[in-house]
Amino acid sequence: MKVEIINIGDELLIGQVINTNAAWMAEQLDLSGFPVRLVTVVRDCHEQILETLQEAEKRSEVVLISGGIGPTNDDITKKTLCEFFQARLVFDEEAFRDIEIFFALRGLHVTELNRQQADIPEGCISLPNKIGTARGMWFEKQGGHNKNSIFVSMPGVPFEMKEMMINEVIPRLQKKFHPPFLYHKTALTQGIGESFLAAQIEAWENKLPENIKLAYLPQPGIVRLRLSGSGNNEQRVRQQVNTALKELEAQISDYIFGYDEDTLEEIVGKLLLEKGKTLATAESCTGGYIAHLITSVPGCSGYYRGSLVAYSNEIKESLLFVSPNILKKEGAVSEETTMEMAVAAQTQFDADYVIATSGIAGPEGGTVEKPVGTTWIALATPDEVFARKYLFGDSRERNIRRTALQALNMLRKSLI
Amino acid sequence: MKVEIINIGDELLIGQVINTNAAWMAEQLDLSGFPVRLVTVVRDCHEQILETLQEAEKRSEVVLISGGIGPTNDDITKKTLCEFFQARLVFDEEAFRDIEIFFALRGLHVTELNRQQADIPEGCISLPNKIGTARGMWFEKQGGHNKNSIFVSMPGVPFEMKEMMINEVIPRLQKKFHPPFLYHKTALTQGIGESFLAAQIEAWENKLPENIKLAYLPQPGIVRLRLSGSGNNEQRVRQQVNTALKELEAQISDYIFGYDEDTLEEIVGKLLLEKGKTLATAESCTGGYIAHLITSVPGCSGYYRGSLVAYSNEIKESLLFVSPNILKKEGAVSEETTMEMAVAAQTQFDADYVIATSGIAGPEGGTVEKPVGTTWIALATPDEVFARKYLFGDSRERNIRRTALQALNMLRKSLI
Repeated sequence: MKVEIINIGDELLIGQVINTNAAWMAEQLDLSGFPVRLVTVVRDCHEQILETLQEAEKRSEVVLISGGIGPTNDDITKKTLCEFFQARLVFDEEAFRDIEIFFALRGLHVTELNRQQADIPEGCISLPNKIGTARGMWFEKQGGHNKNSIFVSMPGVPFEMKEMMINEVIPRLQKKFHPPFLYHKTALTQGIGESFLAAQIEAWENKLPENIKLAYLPQPGIVRLRLSGSGNNEQRVRQQVNTALKELEAQISDYIFGYDEDTLEEIVGKLLLEKGKTLATAESCTGGYIAHLITSVPGCSGYYRGSLVAYSNEIKESLLFVSPNILKKEGAVSEETTMEMAVAAQTQFDADYVIATSGIAGPEGGTVEKPVGTTWIALATPDEVFARKYLFGDSRERNIRRTALQALNMLRKSLI
Repeated sequence: MKVEIINIGDELLIGQVINTNAAWMAEQLDLSGFPVRLVTVVRDCHEQILETLQEAEKRSEVVLISGGIGPTNDDITKKTLCEFFQARLVFDEEAFRDIEIFFALRGLHVTELNRQQADIPEGCISLPNKIGTARGMWFEKQGGHNKNSIFVSMPGVPFEMKEMMINEVIPRLQKKFHPPFLYHKTALTQGIGESFLAAQIEAWENKLPENIKLAYLPQPGIVRLRLSGSGNNEQRVRQQVNTALKELEAQISDYIFGYDEDTLEEIVGKLLLEKGKTLATAESCTGGYIAHLITSVPGCSGYYRGSLVAYSNEIKESLLFVSPNILKKEGAVSEETTMEMAVAAQTQFDADYVIATSGIAGPEGGTVEKPVGTTWIALATPDEVFARKYLFGDSRERNIRRTALQALNMLRKSLI
């Protein structure tokens, strides 16, 4: 099955917008059993769209198109599709009803431009758009180079396209082509690099059944391990993937913090809520980034008390009561300083748990003894306080990110 | 001049990596007078790369390729280029010297795989890679559909590709094709939406000389206005753009905070350093995000004291001394509360300036009187303290971002 994507829009070809649609569409299609061979990005230009459609017809059986179907004049995809399929526009009653409802809910009148969005090329299946006014269009083209090519046109607005892909396009493709059943589970790891991870799980990986594939998906500070099982016996595939995952967990339980779409800040938040415990942070090198991650989770006021970002030694002394002696003798980036920060913040914020960080984020400030990337993270719990040292890299941005993830994972481990 | 981009790599077609290279390359080419017509993304697959090169040759005069030229076996772009150009590999002395130096500087030996990176297709110009080991390859193909097609192969690693584009590829293209001189200046605005901005500068926009184009480039909380002048008289084009910019400034000086690559956090940092003043923050709804922005700037310890993230009313009382009466009567999201937070933080952090925020970021917590998006921002300076109310939208993420940008711009205005 040859599948390709066409993204339409001038904004994608002048660098104004990064083409996140292609990545998301390709991933969803890949996960659903329709691996993508090719992505083409073209301008809102009649000839170029037409040329690309003609080439796509030669190459592929399924062509998924996004962009260029809004109500304004610069959106010319629908017109071009009509030409390509030699179809005229016909008024679609159901589409118009949906548009009327859409505007009525917002207290607005339907304009002529929006009425025209109910004009749909004859012979295509018009796909509902639950969160916008541009309908999707599903064409099946007989004859030609492939017996049966499918072309689907979707909006370019990411959340409208996503809704349509998930609820309309992928289910219809699956119904039509019956790809083998696919089942994916992704284990999220923190605190170990890709190559070390690969070495540690090599034997397990080599013994995976042939129908189960493993993909390493690294991001700064996190490596995702995706297991994809395929086959015709749905129950058996699920079982195989889950068994493989259990074996993996047994080997690297120390690094796995969650699955699929989990984030560390959400997991930590759920654990704190469950246990009725509170959290505060005392941040030096992370400069408020841990607080930002925690407060990006709705409902965090149920467990998060706040943070003291102590960016200078004076503030560490005056607001977190770190002793001037320790700062002088051990330095701000030290076990003692982070532990004192954590303990003081426990009292200051009246919190059960405190994370404290201090490090040399870079690019300046490194020494031979404490090079850029040197980081201490302390954790105060109701029972104890301890600190650990890490040596991260030389990118300020990544050092901040990795310190925050490491700190949240330390807290998670302490909570479970 | 027909220009297209080909990005090669499996990771781009399974959703693992978002294709930021295409956006960056397209923007740079557009800014240099080589607008891009088409982007194609293909897998590390010999046949597909070959097919795409053949189609590109028919369509375009300049074809810029990234990806697939690393040392490992899955990188097959170089082999495929040899086939396409019917060229054999020859050992490039200069390339090998560069590779030897690259490894020597890192205390490593050159492996056989890396030695092979000095094998370059005969007849191409090999382009130096200052920060990696994969050379660029510049091919000129005579005859065929275009008299003279240029194909350039670059690494897929973003920072290596960028360095090569800026220092080698774009200067060579300009030397070869002499596009009209282009001059760009981008004004950065904050605090006004795209449509309001457009209405306010309509008359100015309509009077722009024909050779000067205006582009609106909106991002959450910021609208960039890019002026692009073109012509053969370099000095005159510069003058025209600068004059237009001055007229623009006169009309919307209240919203322009910087130019080109400036960020608010850097501008504010520079102003504070210049004036020898210090800053602290007291954050409720922004939850540490302002602190994170400020501390993402290297050298911020020269002016930034720290932040108190007070996420609960108790912390606002105990650490920022907001009076329980005010919290009860006016609520946490109020003029009085943010002003008290700002003044207290001035003392607590011994800082000249303080930004304080309190708002309902959402999705929960809104009321009829104070719907989600309601936000107060206070600013304490050495001379005064005041607060302003804003009504942002219903996205938590965007409310946090817009509050932070608005607050930093308030501070900037007070500093100038």
